[in-house]
Formats: sequence, C-alpha cells, structure tokens
Amino acid sequence: MHVLITGAAGMLGRKLAERLVADGTLGGRPVLKLTLQDLQTPPSFGSEETAVLPVAGDIADHVLVEHVMAEKPDVIFHLAALASAGAEADMEKGYRANLDGTRGLFEAVRKANYAPRLIFASTVAVYGAPLPDVIDDDFALTPLTSYGTAKAMGELLLGDYTRRGFFDGVALRLPTICVRPGEPNTAASGFFSSIIREPLAGKPAILPVGEDLRHVFASPRAATGFFLHAATMETEALGTRRSLVMPSVSATVGEEIEALREVAGEKAVALIRREPNEEIARIVSAWPRAFEAKRARDLGFEAETSFGDIVAAHIEDEHGGTPPINA
Amino acid sequence: MHVLITGAAGMLGRKLAERLVADGTLGGRPVLKLTLQDLQTPPSFGSEETAVLPVAGDIADHVLVEHVMAEKPDVIFHLAALASAGAEADMEKGYRANLDGTRGLFEAVRKANYAPRLIFASTVAVYGAPLPDVIDDDFALTPLTSYGTAKAMGELLLGDYTRRGFFDGVALRLPTICVRPGEPNTAASGFFSSIIREPLAGKPAILPVGEDLRHVFASPRAATGFFLHAATMETEALGTRRSLVMPSVSATVGEEIEALREVAGEKAVALIRREPNEEIARIVSAWPRAFEAKRARDLGFEAETSFGDIVAAHIEDEHGGTPPINA
Repeated sequence: MHVLITGAAGMLGRKLAERLVADGTLGGRPVLKLTLQDLQTPPSFGSEETAVLPVAGDIADHVLVEHVMAEKPDVIFHLAALASAGAEADMEKGYRANLDGTRGLFEAVRKANYAPRLIFASTVAVYGAPLPDVIDDDFALTPLTSYGTAKAMGELLLGDYTRRGFFDGVALRLPTICVRPGEPNTAASGFFSSIIREPLAGKPAILPVGEDLRHVFASPRAATGFFLHAATMETEALGTRRSLVMPSVSATVGEEIEALREVAGEKAVALIRREPNEEIARIVSAWPRAFEAKRARDLGFEAETSFGDIVAAHIEDEHGGTPPINA
Repeated sequence: MHVLITGAAGMLGRKLAERLVADGTLGGRPVLKLTLQDLQTPPSFGSEETAVLPVAGDIADHVLVEHVMAEKPDVIFHLAALASAGAEADMEKGYRANLDGTRGLFEAVRKANYAPRLIFASTVAVYGAPLPDVIDDDFALTPLTSYGTAKAMGELLLGDYTRRGFFDGVALRLPTICVRPGEPNTAASGFFSSIIREPLAGKPAILPVGEDLRHVFASPRAATGFFLHAATMETEALGTRRSLVMPSVSATVGEEIEALREVAGEKAVALIRREPNEEIARIVSAWPRAFEAKRARDLGFEAETSFGDIVAAHIEDEHGGTPPINA
C-alpha cells in the first residue's frame, strides 16, 4: 500500500514515518511506498520494503497537492499545520496553512475520486475557557486561538466530506504531546515538556506556572499509536461524528514533578527553576484540564494511564532506558 | 447611521429591511442609509429619512464586497446564503456562497479596519442527530448537511475575528422560520409552513410526516426582532462565545394543526392532505426537537411562547388580522 503523511518533517510526522518504515506494514498490509510532504525537505530513510518519496512544498499549494494526490495514496495522514503560536502571530499565514491547506487537500482527495482513509491531526485547542473540569464528548467547540479555530473548521469539513463519501475521515483531537524531544521552544506549552526533558538530560528548566495547574498529556509514542489505530480501525461505529477526543493523562504540574523525582531523584527536581510568567499562566489557564474521551476509549484508542508512564516512554524512546542524569 | 444587509432579497432580509425603513432608527439612532445586497436586484423602497442603495451582485465576489465595505456601514447583517437544499444539490456553489462568501465578507471588514457590529444569520442546522430531547447551549456542533457545515464554520470564524477585534460579531442560530409567507417551496422543511399558510388562504396543503414529529419554530416577526436585538444589545456579556441559539417554540405537527383548528376551524384542517414521504420523514427526524436557549433568553432575545402565537403573528402580518378562509 501507499501512505501519505503531510507535515512529515514535524516531530509527530517524523515519528509516524519512522514507525511505518520500522513496521513495514499497516493493518497487515505491506507499506510499499511512503510519501512524505513538508515545507522543509522531509527526512528520507526508506527500507528495502518501503520506498520513501520526500516532497518539499507548501500544503496550501493546490497544484502540488493535486500532483501528490494523483498517486492515490491508500491512507493519508494530514498533519501539516502552522502551530499555535505561529498562527496567532501571523493570522493570514495561519489560515493559509491550517484552513486553506486542509481544504485544498480535501478538495484534491475529492477530485481524485477514490475514497481513501484520511486521518486529520486536530487538537484540544478546539476547546477554550470557560470549560467544565471534565469535558465530555458532546461538548461544544470553543477555540480561543486562530489555530484552534482553523482546526475546528477542518474537523467540520472532514465530517461533511466523509458524509458525502469523498473519503473515510477521522479527526483526532490530540492532547499536549509530552515529553517532546528536541530543543526547548517558545510555545506557551513548552514548559510542560522541558521541566521533564531538560532535568533528565542534566540541564536546567524554567517553570513559569504554579504546581496546581492541570492539563492533558500523551506521549509521542501514544500519539503515533492513535494515528495507526485510526488508519486501521473499523469506522462504521463512528457514524457521522468523525472527530474524536483522544484519551490522555490528566495531570498537574506537581504530578509531573513527582514523576520526575521518582525516576531521577531530587537532583533532577532541583534543576527546575521557578520563574512565574503571568502571560503564560493566563494562556494555559484557559486550556482543558481533563477529558472523558469515552468514545475514543470504547473504539480502542489507548494512551498512558499515569504521568509516570509518559516519563518512562520518553526515557525508553529518547534515552534507550537510562536518562543522562542517571548515567 | 449606515446599515448593510446581505441577502436582502430573501424573505428575512426583506422583512428586516422593511422594518428598518419603517422604524427609521436602530438603537435610537436614525438609519440614514441602508445598503441592500443580493444576487438578484434587491427591493428598493427608501423613505424620506432613509436612503436605500440596492447592490446586485454575488456575496462571494470579493471586489464587490470590498467596494461595499469601503463605505464602512455601522451595522452589518449578514444573511446572504445558498439555502440548505441548494447547497446540498450543488456542493461547490454552496461552499462558495456559504463559506467563501462569509469569509470574504469578514476579510473585507477586517481590512476596512473599523470594528463594526456584525450579525450573522446561522441556523439550527448546525445540529444533527443523534441529539438529546432538549439541546443545551454547550452542545457540540454536529451538522449533517453542507449548509449546516458551512454555517458552523462561519460561526467559528466569526468568533476568531471578534476575539481579534476586527468586528463585534454575534451569530444567531435561527430555528425554522414559520409561517413563511409566499409560495410553497421544495425545501424538506416546507410543509411546516404550508400546512398553516395554505389552509388559511383556503388552499390545500400536503403533510408528508406524522403528527408526532417535533421541531423548533419562530415567526418571521420574531426573527426580525432577534436581528434588531443583536444589533443593539451590549455584547460584553457574550465574552468569547459569540454564537447563540435563538429561543423558539418547540411544537409537534399535531400542535401546529391544533393551532390552525383554533383560528380557522375544521374546514381549514380538512385542507391538509396526508401523503407520507419517507425521504422527507428521514431528513426531518434528524433535526432538533427543542432548545434550552438559556443564554439567549438571559440576554433578552424573545420568541413566541406557543404555536398559536406564531399563527397569530402570521395572520396579523400577512392578512391584516383576518385570514381569507375566515373572510
């Protein structure tokens, strides 16, 4: 089979591509070809079984997208997006990537006329305050960013295109992915990962909020699992409601720190420097604190069940089982 | 002040324009100019106080819309849309009018850079089965038509543009407007009006569904009231949630018929011919049956409180108090 990943140079896209090449199969069928689209040149790392075709270009470039779709990939993972902070800072660029890019892809799939499975990476940023303590699957979409707005619009479009039979779409509302590997970034959510990742590497990290802040998390490994399950599950049970809140661990910053202490002790925790930042505290206080995610769990989606499991996944996947601070 | 109505040749647009010219004021300020946009030439019927400018052109024509916005109307009523059946039959035309038209207008307002009040006619078609018996204000958007999908997308965009300060937007989710004046049409919802309107005029009407079907209604007069209230209310209380389910009468077809019997007797009811239509029954069974509409009521929006009131409003507004069948 032929699989397409848009946004394949991003953290989740890369992980998903690596997993597909490592598995060599998806839903029991060999992955013979993997097309990886991204604005930057996506990584190219095929195997004997899987040919990887990197396509460098803009998801909002309709000619490029129609060209890619002419190959009729059997499964499409649509991850390309301009992330939250970028879409907030440059509204036109954000809507171009997140709305026009998504709509252009959906239109190209419609015109290719063969109804593939299409998995859309959405986000819990489709929800914003005021929110209940635990959000159920029927709660209204209440985005408070241009990123969350465009993702919510993409979800609606996906529902309509699926209803009309142009593709078999599933939108996954991803929680904050934690622990993100790589360098610290400037995203408001960056500290959720950096207060674990940096101390485990023996480096200092800044905590801009209080320990009682609660939010929702899943590991990059769990997110990859969501994508693969969505690509291979039976979709009849979804009916016309094609957007699913993914399961996640609801944890406070204090619980994050406890999980860090458990694996790396006080010396790791001591690397967290408290520097309260009112602007970041204001932004993250509007974010979801917990989800029921009943539909997704009933449909077989699985996340970690504690923040300790999330830290363990990070140590296994990024440090081969032993973090530098314990080495 | 200067008021713009898009879709001004439609039934609700015409009623709203007539009311503004009749009142001569909006929120206590004289309406000196009224711009009426529609694809067809909109009606022109100014008064000594109010100059009416009819603009014939497509809402999705960005040049036209930017030209209209150059005049910086103080209040914008955005009613232009391709209705449900049309948008379902011609998907591209539907998204062009209902999504691109709305987005183009919002963009033109943003570029005009003066943050007017903007009222967007949305619809309860943003909801589709399975639905609870009574839908609360926090229920998810679950459209089952391309029309409802595009309206829901427009609502999300309105929320984001309002949050960013480009305009002061309010989206009104209108129930089925009943009794619609004019000729019977082919819309699936047409019978809700025609089983009242036609018998009152001494003419036969077809009822394609059972009497226990329940749905939500407001009169054209109430809808005009919604628009005027949304244009003049304080919007601070809305916060970031700018889409409001309007109040409505929840009534069964049987209750409609009882209301008809009350004012026009058995001879009117006898004009209703039962012709069950499975396709229409299937479509309307997916529609909302009742709304709490707590936020809108708390904010001062008012609808009729019984189907009898809706029939009375129709008889007053369309027949001067006495329907032909009683004359």
